[in-house]
Amino acid sequence: MNKYLKIDPWCIIEEGFDSKRHQSSESIFSIGNGLIGQRANFEEDYSGKSLQGTYVAGVYYPDKTKVGWWKNGYPEYFAKVLNATNFIGIRIFVNGDALDLAKCKVLSFQRVLNMKLGVLSRNFVVEMPSGKQVEVTTSRFLSMAVPETGAIHYSLSPVNADVEIKFVPYLDGNVINEDANWDEVFWDQVTHEINGKEGYIVSRTKKTEFEIACGMFIKAFLDGKEILQNPMNVARAGYVEAAFKVKVAKKSRLAVYKHVAVLSSLYHDRKVILDHTKQVLKKSGETGFEKLLMAHVAKWATIWEHSDIVIEGDDEAQQGIRFNIFHLNQTYRGDDPRLNIGPKGFTGEKYGGSTYWDTEAFCIPFFLCTAPASVTRNLLLYRYKHLGKAIENGRKLGFTGGAALYPMVTINGEECHNEWEITFEEIHRNGAIAFAIYNYVRHTGDHNYLIEYGLEVLIAISRFWSQRVNWSDEKKQYVMLGVTGPNEYENNVNNNWYTNTLASWTLQYTIETIELVKHVDPSKYKGLIKKIRFKEREESSCWKDIIAKMYYPYLESEGIFLQQEGYMDKEQMTTEQLDPAQRPLNQKWSWDRILRSCFIKQADVLQGIYLFEEKYDTETILRNFDFYETRTVHESSLSPCIHVVLAARLGKMELAHRLYLRTSRLDIDDYNNEVSEGLHITSMAGTYLAIIEGFAGKRVREGRLVLNPQIPASWKTFAFKILFRDSQLKVDISKKKVVITNESAISVEVNVYNNDYAVASRSTVEIKRNKNNMGYELNK
Amino acid sequence: MNKYLKIDPWCIIEEGFDSKRHQSSESIFSIGNGLIGQRANFEEDYSGKSLQGTYVAGVYYPDKTKVGWWKNGYPEYFAKVLNATNFIGIRIFVNGDALDLAKCKVLSFQRVLNMKLGVLSRNFVVEMPSGKQVEVTTSRFLSMAVPETGAIHYSLSPVNADVEIKFVPYLDGNVINEDANWDEVFWDQVTHEINGKEGYIVSRTKKTEFEIACGMFIKAFLDGKEILQNPMNVARAGYVEAAFKVKVAKKSRLAVYKHVAVLSSLYHDRKVILDHTKQVLKKSGETGFEKLLMAHVAKWATIWEHSDIVIEGDDEAQQGIRFNIFHLNQTYRGDDPRLNIGPKGFTGEKYGGSTYWDTEAFCIPFFLCTAPASVTRNLLLYRYKHLGKAIENGRKLGFTGGAALYPMVTINGEECHNEWEITFEEIHRNGAIAFAIYNYVRHTGDHNYLIEYGLEVLIAISRFWSQRVNWSDEKKQYVMLGVTGPNEYENNVNNNWYTNTLASWTLQYTIETIELVKHVDPSKYKGLIKKIRFKEREESSCWKDIIAKMYYPYLESEGIFLQQEGYMDKEQMTTEQLDPAQRPLNQKWSWDRILRSCFIKQADVLQGIYLFEEKYDTETILRNFDFYETRTVHESSLSPCIHVVLAARLGKMELAHRLYLRTSRLDIDDYNNEVSEGLHITSMAGTYLAIIEGFAGKRVREGRLVLNPQIPASWKTFAFKILFRDSQLKVDISKKKVVITNESAISVEVNVYNNDYAVASRSTVEIKRNKNNMGYELNK
Repeated sequence: MNKYLKIDPWCIIEEGFDSKRHQSSESIFSIGNGLIGQRANFEEDYSGKSLQGTYVAGVYYPDKTKVGWWKNGYPEYFAKVLNATNFIGIRIFVNGDALDLAKCKVLSFQRVLNMKLGVLSRNFVVEMPSGKQVEVTTSRFLSMAVPETGAIHYSLSPVNADVEIKFVPYLDGNVINEDANWDEVFWDQVTHEINGKEGYIVSRTKKTEFEIACGMFIKAFLDGKEILQNPMNVARAGYVEAAFKVKVAKKSRLAVYKHVAVLSSLYHDRKVILDHTKQVLKKSGETGFEKLLMAHVAKWATIWEHSDIVIEGDDEAQQGIRFNIFHLNQTYRGDDPRLNIGPKGFTGEKYGGSTYWDTEAFCIPFFLCTAPASVTRNLLLYRYKHLGKAIENGRKLGFTGGAALYPMVTINGEECHNEWEITFEEIHRNGAIAFAIYNYVRHTGDHNYLIEYGLEVLIAISRFWSQRVNWSDEKKQYVMLGVTGPNEYENNVNNNWYTNTLASWTLQYTIETIELVKHVDPSKYKGLIKKIRFKEREESSCWKDIIAKMYYPYLESEGIFLQQEGYMDKEQMTTEQLDPAQRPLNQKWSWDRILRSCFIKQADVLQGIYLFEEKYDTETILRNFDFYETRTVHESSLSPCIHVVLAARLGKMELAHRLYLRTSRLDIDDYNNEVSEGLHITSMAGTYLAIIEGFAGKRVREGRLVLNPQIPASWKTFAFKILFRDSQLKVDISKKKVVITNESAISVEVNVYNNDYAVASRSTVEIKRNKNNMGYELNK
Repeated sequence: MNKYLKIDPWCIIEEGFDSKRHQSSESIFSIGNGLIGQRANFEEDYSGKSLQGTYVAGVYYPDKTKVGWWKNGYPEYFAKVLNATNFIGIRIFVNGDALDLAKCKVLSFQRVLNMKLGVLSRNFVVEMPSGKQVEVTTSRFLSMAVPETGAIHYSLSPVNADVEIKFVPYLDGNVINEDANWDEVFWDQVTHEINGKEGYIVSRTKKTEFEIACGMFIKAFLDGKEILQNPMNVARAGYVEAAFKVKVAKKSRLAVYKHVAVLSSLYHDRKVILDHTKQVLKKSGETGFEKLLMAHVAKWATIWEHSDIVIEGDDEAQQGIRFNIFHLNQTYRGDDPRLNIGPKGFTGEKYGGSTYWDTEAFCIPFFLCTAPASVTRNLLLYRYKHLGKAIENGRKLGFTGGAALYPMVTINGEECHNEWEITFEEIHRNGAIAFAIYNYVRHTGDHNYLIEYGLEVLIAISRFWSQRVNWSDEKKQYVMLGVTGPNEYENNVNNNWYTNTLASWTLQYTIETIELVKHVDPSKYKGLIKKIRFKEREESSCWKDIIAKMYYPYLESEGIFLQQEGYMDKEQMTTEQLDPAQRPLNQKWSWDRILRSCFIKQADVLQGIYLFEEKYDTETILRNFDFYETRTVHESSLSPCIHVVLAARLGKMELAHRLYLRTSRLDIDDYNNEVSEGLHITSMAGTYLAIIEGFAGKRVREGRLVLNPQIPASWKTFAFKILFRDSQLKVDISKKKVVITNESAISVEVNVYNNDYAVASRSTVEIKRNKNNMGYELNK
C-alpha cells in the first residue's frame, strides 16, 4: 500500500515528480468519456518509463492465440482493444533543447485529476540543462458533452530568461500494443493530411478493418495575442505535425490550444469519416476551449447529481468512492449496446479491454442505481446481440439444440480466452448473465424486456444448463462435473455449490418467465418458440426434473453449503494461520499448491448467498459467512465487496468497514503494486455496492426498495441518490437518523428497518435510528 | 491406417515416389546410432515438403517458454534437442539442371531400410526437364561400430545420353528448428574450414554452448577410377562445399563416397574438438566405405542376436516387431548416463527429445530383457544424477527436507513442461522412477545398485509422497488431492487409485530397502543418512502410518478399484456406444467434454494392476479389466500394450492379438496420420512387452524367471532371447511346445506353466503345450 497521493474530497493530487511512480500515475490519472479514453501520458516527450495508451471504444484486433499446448476448443484469437493514435502530443523545445521530465531538473510538479470537472491538469517548473527555467501549466479533457472531441491547453512561461520556444503539436498513429502475442503491428495507415494548423490521420486496424480518423487543430497565443505564423508541416504515413517557433520573453506566457477529434468507423461510414472529422473539428474550434470545457463540466455535474456518494467525516473514504464512481462513468456511457466494460477500462492493455462476467455481477447493479434504465438495458442488449455466437460457442463444445454458452472473455461475442479450466469450465458466467436480466427487471420493473429479448436468452442458457448436468446413477441426483467456480483457486471441480445453485435458479426463473410472457403477450411467445424451436412441454419438464433433483454439496457437521465436493478433504486452515510472508498466495505459492489448499480467492458460496440472500435465514448466512470468510484471501479485487455486503447484513460493521477500505482505495493506494498496468474498473462497481448494498442495506424485494442503513463508526454521515423505477430518492444517513427525500414526481414506497414508508413526491421522510432500529436483527 | 509400405520380414520398402507421403517416409526410414540420428531426408536437393532433421544426442537448447497465461511454478524454458548440421547433403546437377525429385519426372523409385544391416538406401530413375535420364543408387549408414562416423555412397549412371554431372557435397550448419517457440536461431557458427575434398564446420549452441564439429571427406570414382581433380571450394559461416564437374557417358557410372564425422563437446574438449574430428575422419577415410559398413553390420548382428523376436507365419507382425526393436536400438546405446530416450527419438522435433516417464515404464523393461544390465543401469543413473535438481524442483513447489519431485519432461534434470495439470499434477512419474529401480534389481539381481544409488533416490521420492498426501479429517484417512493419473483425460482429480497405490508402494519398498541396506552395508547406510539428514525413526514411522491409512477409492457394487473419486458420477458408457465418427476423441471433442466423459485415454487402474499384478487374484484382475477396457479409447500410444499383457494374462488371446496389431504397426501403417512428425519410439518398447510379457507371459517372481507362453492363432511359432541375470535364454514357442535353450555358462531355473525347470548351461528343455498347459488358469 502506498500513501503517496494527497487526500482531497474531489481531487487526486500528486505533489512532486517521482519517475518510479509515473506509470502508476498514468493509470490513476486516466481520463475518458466512454468513447475515447487515455492514460495520463504527458503531452510533451518523455523518455522515462511510460505505458502509452489511447483507446477507442469497440475498436479491437484479433490477436492470434499464443499458448504452450493447444487444447481442442481453444479460440483462434484474443480480441484486444488497441492502443490508438496518440493525439495529445505536443513536443516542446526550449532554445532547441527538448523538454523532457526524465532529463530536466524538475523544480516543482503537481498533477491533479479533478473528478468533479473531469479535467486532468499539471503545473510544473523545470530547469533545462542550459539553466533556463520554464513554468508549464497543462489541462485537458475528453468531452463528456461532445464525445468525439477533446481539448488540451498547454501554456508555458519562462521564469528566468527570454527563450525561444519551439512547440510541435502532432498526431502519431504509428503506435503498438505492449500486450501483443506475436509483436504484430495492429494498424495500417490509410491516409494523412496536414494543412497549416490542421492535421489528420486515418488508420485502419488489420483484419478487423476498423477505421479511426483523428484530427487536430491548433491555436496559440502569446500573452493573449494569437500567433498568426504559418507552422512548418511534416507529414508521413501515420504522422503529421505542425511546428512553431516563438520567442517568449521572461514572464511572458505562451498558450497553445490543441483541439482534437477522434471518430471511428463504428459511427461513421469509412467513405466520409475524414470529412466528418473535419466538420467535428471545425465546430469544436469555433466553440472554443472555454465553452467546450463548460459543456463538459455541466455534463459531469449531471452524472454526479445521480451517482455521487457524499461521506462526511472521512475524506479518505470520500475520495476513494468518488474515484471509483468517476472512473466507471469515464468508461461506459450506456448509449451503445455494442460497447461494454473491460476490467481495466481505458486505463491499460491487460485483459484486452474485453468483457467478463464482472459486467453482469458488479457493474449492472451500479448502473441500475445511478443511471437511467436504458444504460443497463444496453448492457443486457450487448449479450442479447451475441446470443447467436453464444449458441455457436456451445455447439463448438458439443452442446446442441440452441444451447448457449456465453464466452468468458469477449469483445464481439466470440470466446477469446485460452485457459481450459476457465474458458470451458468457468461456466457460472452464463448464470450471471441470466441473473442480470432478473436483476434489471426487479429494479426497473421493465417486464417488456423479458418479452422482447430476455426470455430468448434465458431459454438458451437453460438449454445449456440442462445439457451440462448429467444424471449420476451413483447419487440418484443431477450433478455438474468439471467446473471452475468464482473461486478460481479451485479448478475442474465437481458440483460447485454456487454453479449448481445458479443453474437451478436459472431453470426456475426461465420457467417463471415463460409463464409470464405467455400470459402477457401470447402472440410474442408463440413467435419466439417457433423461432427457437422450443418444445415447451418436453424441455421444461426436463428442467423441472433437474430443479427437483439437483445435487447440492452440504456439510452437515457445520450446517454449511460446501463449496464443492471434496472440499473437506483438504487440510483445513484459516487465513489467520497463514504466515503473512506467504501472501499474496498467487505470488508466493506454486499453482498446484494453491489448488490443493483450502484458501479461497474470492467469494464463491458467499457469492451465491449474496445473490439469493432472501432464500436463507440469518443463522444459515452467519454459519456460512463465518466458515468461508476465514478461508478467503480476497486475491481478486471482486471479492471484498461481496463480503462487505454480507458482513453488514450480519451486523459485523467493523469487519465490513475493514474490508471496505481494502476495496475502495485499491488503486489510489496501489495495494497490490500493479496499478501501473491499469485500474480495476469493474471492481470499482463492487466498492459502490459495498456502500449501497452493504452499509445502506439496499435491496429490492417484491417490487419495493428496501433499505437497512448502518454507518461505519468513523463516518459522521453519508448520503447518496438512488434511481429506482421511475423515481429518484436521496438518502441521508447519520448516526441518529435516516432521511429519505423523494426528488421525483411520483410517490415511492420504501421499506426501512422493516417498516414501510410511502414517500410522496418531492417530500421527505425521517426515520430515527435507535437500538431497535439500526439495521439487521443481529446488530449489536 | 495406410497399407502403403511393402511387407518384408527384414526390410521397410517404399515402391514408387509419393511426395505427399515423403515426410512420413522421412520419419519411418530414419537412421541413427544412439549418438547421432537423422530423418530420411534426401542427399540431393528437394524442394517439396520435407522436415529436415539431424540430431546429436544430449545437445539441447533452452527454448524460452511460451504460454498464454503464466502459472506460478512454470519453468522458464523447454529444453529441446536441436536440428544440427546437415551433413548428408550432395547437390546434383545434370547438364546444369538441379536434380530435385519434386521437379523431375520420377520414372522409378525404391526406398529401402534394411533393418538387419542398419542401412538406408534408394534406387531411382529420373528424367530431367531436358529429357536426360539418370539412374541413381544411394546408401548410407550411421556407424554402430564407430558411433561418431557415418558414410554415404551416392552413385549415378546416365540412361539415355552422355551428360555433365556437377556434384556438390556440402556441410550446412545454418539450420533451424521448426519447433521453436520464438523462431529463434539456436546456433552460432564458430569456425569453418574447407581444403579440397575435406571440409569442417564447428557450431555452438546459444546459451548452452554445446559445440558440434562436423567433417566431410569426399572420394569419387568414374567407372571405378578415382577422380583426381581439385574441387571448387565454397566456404562461409556455417557452410562449406566442394564442387566437382564430371562428364559421364551414357551407361557409365559415377560413384561418390562422402565420409562424415560428427563430434560433440559432450565427449571432446572444445579446444581440440576440431582436431579430433580431423583424426576421426582421417581414420574413417583410411578404413574405407566397405570395411566401415562391415563393422557396422557386425555390430547390428550382435544387437539382433540379443533382441530379435522371430515370428513365423505372419510377416506383417514380424516386420512390425523388428521395426520397433530396430528403432529402439538406433535411439539408445546405453553407454552414457547423461543420455536418455525421447518419445520421438531422433526422428522428429516434437516433445523436444526430452525424457518422460516412458523411459522407466516402457523402455527399461525392454532393455532389461535385451541388453546387458549396464544399459538399464545407465538409465537409472540418469535419474540419480538429477536427484539434486529433482529436490530443487520439489522445493520450488513448496516441498521441504529433501523431497524430490522428478520433472515430467526434462533433458538436464530441470522441468521443462508447462501445462499445470501435467507439470505439477502428473506426479505418478515419481513412482515410475522408484518402480524402475525395483524392476531393475528384480531382473538383474544387482542389489549393489540400491546401496550405491537406489536408496538415496527412494528416500527422496518417499519424502515427497509423505508430504504430498494430507490427512482428511472427513475420511480419517490419507488422501492425495489434485493429481493427474496416466489417464490424461482426467485432470486435477482427487485420489487417483493408481497414484495412491504407487505412492504407498514406494513408501513400503523404501522401508524394505532401508532394512536391506542397513543389513548388507551398515557403514554405507550410516554415511547416507548423514548425507541426507534422514531421521529414520521419525520419517519411516510417518510413512508406515500413511501406508496403513491410505485411502483407495473402490467401487463396491462392481468389485473394482475406482480410477479416482467421483468417477461413477460420470455418465457411464462403453467405447462400443461411441459413434466411430466421434473418434479419436482428442480430435473431435473439446477438452472439457473429454474431461467430463468416462472415456480413458490410456491404462490407469490397469497400469497399476499391471505393475503389481501379483497382489491381485485373477477374478479381481478380470473384473477391473472388463470394466476399464470397455471404457479405454487408447488414444495414447502407450496404452494398448499394457492391455495386451493383461488380456493375455486373462487368456483373452483374441483381444490381446487385436490390441497388439494396433501397437506394433502404429508407425509403419501411420494409424493416426501423424507419423510425419516422427516415430513413437518409447511406445515401441511397449510393443516388445506386449509379446514378451503378454504372449510369452514373462515375469520375475521371487528372483526366478517365469513364463506362461501363449501364441496368437494366426502365428505358427515365435522365438526370442532373453537376458536374465547372468544368463541368456532362447525361447521357442509353437502351438505344441515351448523350448527353452540356455545359451549361457550357468544353469538357470525357469518356471513355465507353474512348473519349475532347471535349465542347465548350454542345454535345452522342452515343455509340451496341452489343455492343462497353455498359459493361465482362465484360458479357454
